[in-house]
Amino acid sequence: MTGTRTGDVMTAIRSRIASRALAPDEKLPSIRSFAKRMNVSPSTVVDAYDRLAAEGIIRSQRGSGFYVCSPLAPLDLATIGPKLDREIDPFWVSRQSLDAETDMLKPGCGWLPPDWMPNDGIRKAIRKLARASDALLSEYGSTRGSKKLRHFLGRQLADEGINARPEQIMLSISGTQAIDLICRFLLRPGDSVIVDDPCYFNFQALLKAHEVNVVSVPYTASGPNMQRFAEALTAHKPRLYITNSALHNPTGATMSPQTAHQLLTLAAKHDLTIVEDDIFSAFEPSSSPRLASLDGLERVIRIGSFSKPLSASIRCGYIAARADWIEALIDLQVATNFGGPSPLTSEMLFHILSDGSYRKHMEDVRQKLSKKRLSVAKELSALGIVPWLMPRGGFYLWCTLPEGLDSAHIAREALKHNLVLAPGNVFSPSQTMAHYMRFNVSQMSDPKTLTVLKNVIASSRN
Amino acid sequence: MTGTRTGDVMTAIRSRIASRALAPDEKLPSIRSFAKRMNVSPSTVVDAYDRLAAEGIIRSQRGSGFYVCSPLAPLDLATIGPKLDREIDPFWVSRQSLDAETDMLKPGCGWLPPDWMPNDGIRKAIRKLARASDALLSEYGSTRGSKKLRHFLGRQLADEGINARPEQIMLSISGTQAIDLICRFLLRPGDSVIVDDPCYFNFQALLKAHEVNVVSVPYTASGPNMQRFAEALTAHKPRLYITNSALHNPTGATMSPQTAHQLLTLAAKHDLTIVEDDIFSAFEPSSSPRLASLDGLERVIRIGSFSKPLSASIRCGYIAARADWIEALIDLQVATNFGGPSPLTSEMLFHILSDGSYRKHMEDVRQKLSKKRLSVAKELSALGIVPWLMPRGGFYLWCTLPEGLDSAHIAREALKHNLVLAPGNVFSPSQTMAHYMRFNVSQMSDPKTLTVLKNVIASSRN
Repeated sequence: MTGTRTGDVMTAIRSRIASRALAPDEKLPSIRSFAKRMNVSPSTVVDAYDRLAAEGIIRSQRGSGFYVCSPLAPLDLATIGPKLDREIDPFWVSRQSLDAETDMLKPGCGWLPPDWMPNDGIRKAIRKLARASDALLSEYGSTRGSKKLRHFLGRQLADEGINARPEQIMLSISGTQAIDLICRFLLRPGDSVIVDDPCYFNFQALLKAHEVNVVSVPYTASGPNMQRFAEALTAHKPRLYITNSALHNPTGATMSPQTAHQLLTLAAKHDLTIVEDDIFSAFEPSSSPRLASLDGLERVIRIGSFSKPLSASIRCGYIAARADWIEALIDLQVATNFGGPSPLTSEMLFHILSDGSYRKHMEDVRQKLSKKRLSVAKELSALGIVPWLMPRGGFYLWCTLPEGLDSAHIAREALKHNLVLAPGNVFSPSQTMAHYMRFNVSQMSDPKTLTVLKNVIASSRN
Repeated sequence: MTGTRTGDVMTAIRSRIASRALAPDEKLPSIRSFAKRMNVSPSTVVDAYDRLAAEGIIRSQRGSGFYVCSPLAPLDLATIGPKLDREIDPFWVSRQSLDAETDMLKPGCGWLPPDWMPNDGIRKAIRKLARASDALLSEYGSTRGSKKLRHFLGRQLADEGINARPEQIMLSISGTQAIDLICRFLLRPGDSVIVDDPCYFNFQALLKAHEVNVVSVPYTASGPNMQRFAEALTAHKPRLYITNSALHNPTGATMSPQTAHQLLTLAAKHDLTIVEDDIFSAFEPSSSPRLASLDGLERVIRIGSFSKPLSASIRCGYIAARADWIEALIDLQVATNFGGPSPLTSEMLFHILSDGSYRKHMEDVRQKLSKKRLSVAKELSALGIVPWLMPRGGFYLWCTLPEGLDSAHIAREALKHNLVLAPGNVFSPSQTMAHYMRFNVSQMSDPKTLTVLKNVIASSRN
């Protein structure tokens, strides 16, 4: 801007404010008079004032002119960083990893590094978006969400053998919000809900917000322990079971077909509804049995999102369920968010997903992850950190720590060295997993990660 | 695509599927063999298969090849249109107007037509977005939301005399979701909440989802009736009062300074928290008194969004409140949505808002609306439809219908002629506003609107 006429006017005003020739809350010279004084056109002054207003140096008061802004309380946003003193609760990993500074290492976080993502595809989709219709750019979307995207999802579900009619699919703001809507619809405070032990930490945070009774069932390498599951059904008469399909978070395990069948048989007997959270499906080497395919969306609600394989910055999820439930969930989404995801977001997502290059990208990611899982498992094992099982896909390794180490303590110590870890108990409703830790293999390429980990372990032993 | 090599391969596969030479679920020829047969390179076949897979004609099975998709249940999404038989409840206007087909006229809806919006600014911001960093394109945002945008909002609030420290501002998915989070945080089922009568219909839908006791207080041309407000405080001990500041929805009225002061005095005495929903502020000709400025965010929670002045397709809202409440609201937003708005969305919004041209755009819109309010008021008056008051700004006229006409009946009849109206009782918790109707003056440029309205009124009188 410097050197241009607009820039000159901006500089002149800035220096008047700095020298207090223009005091806080004082009115600026009129457009016409200042244009004359600076020997520029009025429109140049308008442009300069607008830019200064956008910078927050001056403000425009409708129908009255421009004024110098009052001095502000210091807006030092940088001071709000991760907090070392935060309790290790189900929010611990989310808050620490979401609010981590860019120079922090995050093997505890739940997403891929930016350079693993389909950035070219995203940029291409954004450029396409700039040519979208005025209506798409500015109007609310329909209550079910983008037709094109739902059509695409319908075909994807059909490939899995799930025949979802159009009125059985709706878009949501995110995978998490999809589960939240379902909980609001089906649960009342005091109801019982089954989750896995361990399970995704945010299921616990979410269920806490719904004030329900969380019942946990130990998770095995082939799904929940079925005997314990049956006991929980009889003892607690739960309304809902929430689990990950495809690749379980945090263990990376996959449910066996036998377990899936048993589970659905029990669910039918006890009138249990199941939320199948399928956000890791794109990371599977081949499709594992889905509860929704066996059940046909009778008592299974399928949810998904695109945050893990595609972008967490493009927020969109979906729900496939019984048509009458979808109708009620849409009302609930209108009441609580006046509709679903941004039409711009859905359009962008559709462009990326329907571009042939996305499949190739995911194939590369799966191959890279497959190598990473092996190499990181080896590196961790050298530190005495041993994977509970070797997952078929995905980016998590659920590991036991060397004898006598407490993962919460290790995580707190590591945070002092800018390393965000995911200690076992944040995943454990029964709080019995202090000797476990979840590692994200895609976030461990920087050699500092293992060095810091090694040092923290060594000093924790002393 | 036709005429290119990839296009030729796609056509060849499509015709084999059409003729059943390739049956549903049958494996496609291998890349290598089909390349040979078509006399093209293998990469051309890969490209063609990928595109056909993206179209949903074939599917790729990981590690195994491509297969013809099974025939689908008809995905005739077009059949799901507005429902004529829907009850006239607080969801009526939202569902009808959000799901209206593009050829419908919508004087009942709550937004500006696409050609009134800052589309050039939006397109410019989108193009900028394509050059954003990989991290912005693919990572989750911080839990409070974009620093730049919050900084901008902090300055805007400071201009209004609201000194919000950085830890007092958070971004939300939408204005509605902001209120929803606050309700989840502050309310328990059975609590009482005061709303205006009439009020924005979705407040009622939202509060219903929270299972609270809705207490309504008649709204006058200068704010709520203060005597009735005081009585409601004593009788119901409400936890919350939710209202629109600046320009009230649906009436377009503005709270007087005296009412604002009285309200805050009463609120302090009865420990009432107030949610000030400020989504229409950009449409005011000059700033009216804000409860949050008088109170300083002690017991007032300020929320806003950009859906009305800028774009409803860019979903983002904000909350300014006490720092400890913001901290709790952030946890709640993580639990229920794993964070706030898309970082891409926030960045786009920041680009548009901080561009000088946005202010000019809004000045034009205010001028256009000011003329439209007058001309539409005149046209409606000719039909016996009379504005309750002439608002200082915005796009709503809250009108009484000619004697003896029921607005719900008129709205149902109008829908048969593709005209979406907003009948009075959807805004009225007391259900006493059957003779009122809300009109959006910006959506009435098509002369058909008045013609249909006139005919429907005429036939309703017979």
